[in-house]
Amino acid sequence: MSAVTTEPATTDTGLRAGAFGNAVALSCRECGHRLDLGPFYACPECFGPLEIAYEFPTVTREEIEAGPANIWRYKALLPVPADIEQSPNTEPGFTRLLKAHNLGATLGIDNLWVKDDSTNPTNSFKDRVVACALSAARELGAKVFACPSTGNLANAVAAAGARAGIKTVVFIPSNLEKPKQVNSAVYTDSLVAVDGNYDDVNKLAQEIAAEEDGWAFVNVNVRPYYAEGSKTLGYEIAEQLGWRLPDQVVIPVASGSQLTKVHKAFQELIKLGLVEDKPVKIFGAQATGCSPVSVAYKAGVDAIRPVKPDTIAKSLAIGNPADGIYVLDICRETGGAVEDITDDEVREGILLLARTEGIFTETAGGTTVGVLKKLVETGQLDTSLETVVINTGMGLKTLDAVADKVGPAATIAPNYDAFVETGLTS
Amino acid sequence: MSAVTTEPATTDTGLRAGAFGNAVALSCRECGHRLDLGPFYACPECFGPLEIAYEFPTVTREEIEAGPANIWRYKALLPVPADIEQSPNTEPGFTRLLKAHNLGATLGIDNLWVKDDSTNPTNSFKDRVVACALSAARELGAKVFACPSTGNLANAVAAAGARAGIKTVVFIPSNLEKPKQVNSAVYTDSLVAVDGNYDDVNKLAQEIAAEEDGWAFVNVNVRPYYAEGSKTLGYEIAEQLGWRLPDQVVIPVASGSQLTKVHKAFQELIKLGLVEDKPVKIFGAQATGCSPVSVAYKAGVDAIRPVKPDTIAKSLAIGNPADGIYVLDICRETGGAVEDITDDEVREGILLLARTEGIFTETAGGTTVGVLKKLVETGQLDTSLETVVINTGMGLKTLDAVADKVGPAATIAPNYDAFVETGLTS
Ligand SMILES: Cc1ncc(COP(=O)(O)O)c(C=O)c1O
Ligand SMILES: Cc1ncc(COP(=O)(O)O)c(C=O)c1O
Ligand SMILES: [Zn+2]
Ligand SMILES: [Zn+2]
Repeated sequence: MSAVTTEPATTDTGLRAGAFGNAVALSCRECGHRLDLGPFYACPECFGPLEIAYEFPTVTREEIEAGPANIWRYKALLPVPADIEQSPNTEPGFTRLLKAHNLGATLGIDNLWVKDDSTNPTNSFKDRVVACALSAARELGAKVFACPSTGNLANAVAAAGARAGIKTVVFIPSNLEKPKQVNSAVYTDSLVAVDGNYDDVNKLAQEIAAEEDGWAFVNVNVRPYYAEGSKTLGYEIAEQLGWRLPDQVVIPVASGSQLTKVHKAFQELIKLGLVEDKPVKIFGAQATGCSPVSVAYKAGVDAIRPVKPDTIAKSLAIGNPADGIYVLDICRETGGAVEDITDDEVREGILLLARTEGIFTETAGGTTVGVLKKLVETGQLDTSLETVVINTGMGLKTLDAVADKVGPAATIAPNYDAFVETGLTS
Repeated sequence: MSAVTTEPATTDTGLRAGAFGNAVALSCRECGHRLDLGPFYACPECFGPLEIAYEFPTVTREEIEAGPANIWRYKALLPVPADIEQSPNTEPGFTRLLKAHNLGATLGIDNLWVKDDSTNPTNSFKDRVVACALSAARELGAKVFACPSTGNLANAVAAAGARAGIKTVVFIPSNLEKPKQVNSAVYTDSLVAVDGNYDDVNKLAQEIAAEEDGWAFVNVNVRPYYAEGSKTLGYEIAEQLGWRLPDQVVIPVASGSQLTKVHKAFQELIKLGLVEDKPVKIFGAQATGCSPVSVAYKAGVDAIRPVKPDTIAKSLAIGNPADGIYVLDICRETGGAVEDITDDEVREGILLLARTEGIFTETAGGTTVGVLKKLVETGQLDTSLETVVINTGMGLKTLDAVADKVGPAATIAPNYDAFVETGLTS
């Protein structure tokens, strides 16, 4: 496997038959140029991003329902081999879709659901994309599994790599908080701290991918395979609604990949006849401190101006989002919107979800729930339509965001009389 | 609902038909005395612990498999109504059963599985028992949902109560670390800090249950219903193995409830004809700093001498385990054992599981994995037999246990040459 190449060295790929399931090619999102499946992520014609192209056979609901309670039930729709369950992986996905009665009532939305991805193996939706990247790394014969990251991705890669028994190297900024370091270092001896910010770490990853053979950086040279993992969020929402699409979905946006893939998933399900065709409005959620897509949406422009992130929603803090323009297209086309909220509103979003539905989310989920609220208040979301909000991460990872906002109602002596004085008796 | 009563006030229970599904009575584990289902937990004849008794109809694998991907697929075997899915709850369970190739190879066990309960809604197996307690609280007409706890149970109760929209009061020792307080306080305004240790908090809970009407303390006056939730771990293991029992299971022991319920689950599956009858050796795991059951096991005695806990495995630190004597019985009868390990071995257990299988467990899981290792080393576990080890909790909750043991392999300047010097290039 050679890395950061934009063109295959040879058409004889050396891949085993069925290595990528029903995927047949890489296809340029910009110019449509196609090339053979391999460790490529940029179009050799126009440098546009490459996407996976498929030739799907007939896929039935029954086949899917007979599969395991994880993302591999959708393996026919992913760039993975038919025997994917045989290779050790973290088995993410098929997380809860909860009817959100309380949150819906609070916000005035008649029919609201929370898709809760906080219960994945390393507690974020990243386990989905990393599982697909791991399969690609294996099939491409990679010797090292790697990523640059500051958080969720590092956790997911380190865990998946350990379980797969593949050499795994995770690059983090050296000033990352100790608890976040520990949460990746438990899985691997090969955590590398880099003196610099996330951009520096990312650039180093690209250099290594260019210089070294056999390194699969999940979000660099196997990114097309990796990104497909987010489609499973869309498949699950539809299946868990009873093979039906919702009317509206609210999705957090960092690079914008997840939002575009959920949209793609819905389109695929329609084409395959697995759900009835219907319009789905797609909404993107950002924190104001890193809201390049929301800014462009509101300005009515097509180009996204990069920003320097300054928000507590660190997992969404990508100032130059690779898929931002596609997010704009999708939200505009479907009649959705992109909205952003302040860090205070992010914190309120975290507490709102915890208090109403018993789900403790991280700042990314606080952003998404807070944006949902703002979309209602500004009349951008139709409260009479069936709506799904996606929670992509877990509150234990960003405890500091709410630590000063909650605490005991009272501190008492250990006896009944002291308790009665609190007024908490019914 | 009256609380901490040992005898029902009236035989007219005021319950709706089918409130407890196929459960028909409470039955004394010691003397066999039976009484009507109600908020009772101690036998009016002998003060022994009360258990749920059932009259099961025919239950088929197909019925179960057609159910949801959570514990309610086993609702016919639990003290819950047939429409349990209609009441908002956290929908825990049906967590991963992972084939542990790497851990098995490291320990020399041919055929090893990890049942991973860290991916439950609040990241421990407590979500299972709390979901059953919540149903009982509802059916018994409780006005308040409550518990004394220092950790996992508090999280689970606060989350489930929020989602259910029932008034929820959680009692914690006032010296509990701030992060653990936050992890419950996010869900509820009614967190009460009590000046005292866990025993003091527990005593206060019993007092309140005795004085106040309509308070359901999950681990006090609805404990018989609560405890049944742990059976689902046993059901899932059997179903996920393809409706087959394993040969050996290793289970952590605090009060001992979970171990006895997993054993009960296996027996029920056999009686119902859902799995073939076969012997299953059951092993209990404790930390040496709180190992009253292990001490009794090794001494060959039947009585358990209470201890004052002193271990980092705080979620297992119950010095006077209510079900300890039943754990002894079961482990002896089935040809298993009870073993304990030091806090250092607990930490090693955490890292061993993370490095081999990509699962980050808390100190309870470190204890269980460390005991598994010790059972192999001491020849107490048959390495040729199919073995399941249960991970009941999540490492993010006890980060401090391993924070000083892991970290970056190197800290480097942000360039390729600096990276090459680390020796991590392949
Ligand atoms: C918790 C969480 N939610 C959402 C996202 C956004 O993902 P994307 O880059 O696909 O827009 C991320 C990405 O890092 C994340 O960590
Ligand atoms: C993570 C974890 N594992 C295991 C146990 C043991 O449960 P039991 O009291 O049923 O023995 C507990 C109980 O508190 C726990 O929190
Ligand atoms: Zn192109
Ligand atoms: Zn009795």
